[in-house]
Amino acid sequence: MVIKVGIVGYGTIGKRVADAVRKMDDMELVGAVKQNPDYEGEVAVSKGIRLYTYEDKVGKFEKAGIKVSGTINELLRSIDVVIDATPDGVGAENKAKLYEPMKLKAIFQGGEEAEVAEVSFNALANYDMAVGKRFVRVVSCNTTALSRLISAFLIHGYRIRRVRAYIVRRGADPREFKKGPINDVVFNPATVPSHHGPDVMTVIPSVNIITMAVAVPTTMMHLHMVNVEFDGQISRGEAIKVLEETPRILLFNASSKKFESLAQVIEWARDIGRPRGDVFENAVIEDSITASQNELFLMQGVHQESIVVPENIDAVRAMMGLTDKWSSIRKTDEVLGLITTNKNYALA
Amino acid sequence: MVIKVGIVGYGTIGKRVADAVRKMDDMELVGAVKQNPDYEGEVAVSKGIRLYTYEDKVGKFEKAGIKVSGTINELLRSIDVVIDATPDGVGAENKAKLYEPMKLKAIFQGGEEAEVAEVSFNALANYDMAVGKRFVRVVSCNTTALSRLISAFLIHGYRIRRVRAYIVRRGADPREFKKGPINDVVFNPATVPSHHGPDVMTVIPSVNIITMAVAVPTTMMHLHMVNVEFDGQISRGEAIKVLEETPRILLFNASSKKFESLAQVIEWARDIGRPRGDVFENAVIEDSITASQNELFLMQGVHQESIVVPENIDAVRAMMGLTDKWSSIRKTDEVLGLITTNKNYALA
Amino acid sequence: MVIKVGIVGYGTIGKRVADAVRKMDDMELVGAVKQNPDYEGEVAVSKGIRLYTYEDKVGKFEKAGIKVSGTINELLRSIDVVIDATPDGVGAENKAKLYEPMKLKAIFQGGEEAEVAEVSFNALANYDMAVGKRFVRVVSCNTTALSRLISAFLIHGYRIRRVRAYIVRRGADPREFKKGPINDVVFNPATVPSHHGPDVMTVIPSVNIITMAVAVPTTMMHLHMVNVEFDGQISRGEAIKVLEETPRILLFNASSKKFESLAQVIEWARDIGRPRGDVFENAVIEDSITASQNELFLMQGVHQESIVVPENIDAVRAMMGLTDKWSSIRKTDEVLGLITTNKNYALA
Amino acid sequence: MVIKVGIVGYGTIGKRVADAVRKMDDMELVGAVKQNPDYEGEVAVSKGIRLYTYEDKVGKFEKAGIKVSGTINELLRSIDVVIDATPDGVGAENKAKLYEPMKLKAIFQGGEEAEVAEVSFNALANYDMAVGKRFVRVVSCNTTALSRLISAFLIHGYRIRRVRAYIVRRGADPREFKKGPINDVVFNPATVPSHHGPDVMTVIPSVNIITMAVAVPTTMMHLHMVNVEFDGQISRGEAIKVLEETPRILLFNASSKKFESLAQVIEWARDIGRPRGDVFENAVIEDSITASQNELFLMQGVHQESIVVPENIDAVRAMMGLTDKWSSIRKTDEVLGLITTNKNYALA
Repeated sequence: MVIKVGIVGYGTIGKRVADAVRKMDDMELVGAVKQNPDYEGEVAVSKGIRLYTYEDKVGKFEKAGIKVSGTINELLRSIDVVIDATPDGVGAENKAKLYEPMKLKAIFQGGEEAEVAEVSFNALANYDMAVGKRFVRVVSCNTTALSRLISAFLIHGYRIRRVRAYIVRRGADPREFKKGPINDVVFNPATVPSHHGPDVMTVIPSVNIITMAVAVPTTMMHLHMVNVEFDGQISRGEAIKVLEETPRILLFNASSKKFESLAQVIEWARDIGRPRGDVFENAVIEDSITASQNELFLMQGVHQESIVVPENIDAVRAMMGLTDKWSSIRKTDEVLGLITTNKNYALA
Repeated sequence: MVIKVGIVGYGTIGKRVADAVRKMDDMELVGAVKQNPDYEGEVAVSKGIRLYTYEDKVGKFEKAGIKVSGTINELLRSIDVVIDATPDGVGAENKAKLYEPMKLKAIFQGGEEAEVAEVSFNALANYDMAVGKRFVRVVSCNTTALSRLISAFLIHGYRIRRVRAYIVRRGADPREFKKGPINDVVFNPATVPSHHGPDVMTVIPSVNIITMAVAVPTTMMHLHMVNVEFDGQISRGEAIKVLEETPRILLFNASSKKFESLAQVIEWARDIGRPRGDVFENAVIEDSITASQNELFLMQGVHQESIVVPENIDAVRAMMGLTDKWSSIRKTDEVLGLITTNKNYALA
Repeated sequence: MVIKVGIVGYGTIGKRVADAVRKMDDMELVGAVKQNPDYEGEVAVSKGIRLYTYEDKVGKFEKAGIKVSGTINELLRSIDVVIDATPDGVGAENKAKLYEPMKLKAIFQGGEEAEVAEVSFNALANYDMAVGKRFVRVVSCNTTALSRLISAFLIHGYRIRRVRAYIVRRGADPREFKKGPINDVVFNPATVPSHHGPDVMTVIPSVNIITMAVAVPTTMMHLHMVNVEFDGQISRGEAIKVLEETPRILLFNASSKKFESLAQVIEWARDIGRPRGDVFENAVIEDSITASQNELFLMQGVHQESIVVPENIDAVRAMMGLTDKWSSIRKTDEVLGLITTNKNYALA
Repeated sequence: MVIKVGIVGYGTIGKRVADAVRKMDDMELVGAVKQNPDYEGEVAVSKGIRLYTYEDKVGKFEKAGIKVSGTINELLRSIDVVIDATPDGVGAENKAKLYEPMKLKAIFQGGEEAEVAEVSFNALANYDMAVGKRFVRVVSCNTTALSRLISAFLIHGYRIRRVRAYIVRRGADPREFKKGPINDVVFNPATVPSHHGPDVMTVIPSVNIITMAVAVPTTMMHLHMVNVEFDGQISRGEAIKVLEETPRILLFNASSKKFESLAQVIEWARDIGRPRGDVFENAVIEDSITASQNELFLMQGVHQESIVVPENIDAVRAMMGLTDKWSSIRKTDEVLGLITTNKNYALA
């Protein structure tokens, strides 16, 4: 069975998910909806992706010389599931105006409120909750990274008392040249907790987590400084073992391999030939993993442009009932080339 | 009694301390030692500061048309105490080569190892420990800010179980155009704890503190995200009261006064007419102060260029036995224009 | 005679002009209009500046605890001239709605279209054109700097064939934390000429100038790389002499005084005690001044936050007929502390 | 005939040239010399690249678990030509110590002085000069881009009177986290001309060119604002035609395709699947191409990490006499995927 997938919103996330869907043998990308004719649209067409747009935008595409295959409604009528990767809040509007009336299954991104969907999704944390659902929300990049990290320990049977996470956000994506800050640290927000803590609890309701966040003038990756307080002791060695065998988490070693900054992590991804230099995994800095009393400290880099890509693929499989959690995770990772130090896709 | 002060190292810290010393009526700036003839030297002379240099550098100054009043040895022979603000590690060399042989009292900065001095100093934390000492080390900007914050609560009788501090360092000072990073977050260091935690313990040995640090592409201020775990409960209101009446800590309100980033804090300092836009106080973001269980969370900005200036002044008074702790803090603050919301200089 | 001045728009430019007006003995700042109650408003009141606002904003100020002295209409009725420093385009609206009906003289900033005023103004270039005018537009920071530079040579009798200027714009002001870019060079605009060339011609219609502009991730200053082609030869020495004796142009020497970047220029301004670290002068890099064939090449830094401040003061004097060009320039410069290497205020 | 190539210096340039050599069917990459065992070395080995190092570094590699295939001398003895991509100045040392004694042909990079080689090379400009030579220097990224641009017009028979180029340099490569500036524009150098003008003349001695350069806080690409003065008129349309049919120059349209900044150019390269997001071509901003009098103005982006890669490949072919200029350029471009709007590889 091959699931017919459509993408609405062909930006940072949408274009990556489009490429990922096209690589899967149990999915077919029917097309992607784009609002504006620009270089991203031109590239899409050159790759063989069929573009769709809004009725009143067709002329603009024709004028720009970018081929359009039809309107958004035409696309939506010919697919099994839509992945909505529009800007924050637009997904909810699309749901009300389009997906619900058309009785179409839909996946939303983390910029939408949790209420947009029946379940806030992270593959490691709650794949099974999304099985058969109509509306699923893949949580945002920061929430995804925290959910994976917490799940790693929960899956391995550890009991977590509290998580405190300090998030240093990149100010903008590489292509967003109008956003700042330039030479500043922004309180993002000034209040505590930032929205990330409560958002993780939409995925893992049992976790006690508090988060703070600032934004800085970088475009590469978010950086988390995380403190996990356990019920009982955990050694550094145990923590490394947990992280090494959890999919979608990858350790980077500063002392031996000279990963001294997030840019080195991206450079590695460029060097190994990842498309667009993407890092789909949580990039945990191995040297930072420190056990102190019954607490664990660590840093992790979060590639905001790509970390949710595998989650969107798994969400399709869960909603359509294609396969089980670990089979989906393994398949996604193998096709996209994710690396797990000690592969173990039957952790449960 | 007027103390004769000399400064060795006329850079970011040295030039600020020089200006501060000149404002104090119980001190006299005899001169400052500078290595290279440049615009900073020219400005110093134009302000009436006597410059001294190394014997082999006199010619360079003459050639650049910048007046030199003598050699470093001549300066050192005519002062009561030297404030050494040279780059990391040079202070220790100067101590061995110059200050010890000349039996001169000396203040070092936080870039030196703690062993360079008899006491690592922060006025609020341990003024009395420096009374009469020969060698005192004013701790670095980050350590100063953390020591003040911790002291605020200790002075008010709270018992602290643990401090976890997450430091987002500015990559360089505004004038340091060769340092980076440009578009990166650097693990600084990758290991935990960063040196800041142990360094705070050189000032407040009893505190249980762990720190992590990264560096980002800004020049304005450091940003701390701090978590203080108390023995027992503390309310947000109590914490605010503590911080409002502690000298050298100032609250900035994001919701009512629109301090939404560190640049706004600096803009405020520029607007009120602070010399060089300096912020001598810990800039605590009031909205971030959050009590949760028996823990407190908050953000604070740390102006790396100027926060240690008042501490250097107090260190001179302590070493020379000029006056007591609270009198010195009050005098320094009044002369330099520091602001405390609820002035209370007899907290003890 | 003391001119009563009001300021509408109390942001980056407005607050600086307010401070400057207050220093002049032939002007009185009656008050400034501000829209939002924030730290800048609080600081203004603490300095003794009377704030006015829009009728419907009075409550917001009261709620924020910031004293308001009245409404914008009350201010406008009690002044001789208004300096409008509102965001781009608002000045024109204010003119139509307020200043014209109230028959009030008004000065606009360079963000407005040239048509808003009878003359686009730069003190060195065309002070006399503004004498007695009702509506004058002080051109933008980049245009001001180019107009000064060109005027310097015209005043000294040189004939210019063509000016080519390449502008590297700072992406945002220090306090504008939402603007970018972060890690990018933006074509600003992609087309040639940028608006700066034509804008210079609103001040100096006879000049043949073409400009290109990009924006980069800095907040400090704009940087101009300028090529002036003369009718006939000019030597480097002659050019330096011209620039040294022209007011509002100051040379910075890289080889002898170590001005190696724009941040050093700002650091100098902070060190000499300029308010807010402002640089009112064109900061010409002396080492870059190069004569080649009948062309001159040079770099200059342009402090976007403050360079138009003296021009606004002179515009008031010209419009009100207070004094002549060179007397006004000299008075403004002396009061604000501008530096000219070889003072010569009777160049004409 | 397959040429055996070795690379000394496996950094930003070296690793890209290594990948390019491996794609050519007339070359074989025997191995690459690396000094330090780090993630770049690990990735190289994982790709099947044989690493060599200095005798005293073998142990470090073994300790880091990175396989070494031999010493630098062993590599050098088994190749026909070495491409030296070591840091500035090291190439000249290697020449004296290794390549000359071993009678090995060598290609150097633009960080070396021109004197290191018999010819300073750019494929479009002077391929034939390098035929059969022993020592060739591929000029730096900025010089390469300017040489291509100038050659485009010369090849098409235009006569150039003068070139003025204004270079806005990226402060560091993405992976160089220690270099700045952070919030500054650096005079790079303060004097005029910068070294780029004279360097272009090592490739095209007849051209009259003057250059100025500053460095800014970006890592993406250099940006050139170029003014070409012709002997006689040139229209915008003619210029576009010239650039469209010259290999290694690609036009990017801001108005229709929304290339509004250099980051968009890189985003395009990431999207089309270029390895590491590389842009081997001069990225000329089509909208900026402006004819005025007998002058042409334009902006171009220069991807410092990759623009010299095709030139190194062509340099091998020229030195070894493998084929003629246009055949080499075409082959290199086709294999590496360079795009020319109107392909015309027999321009001469």
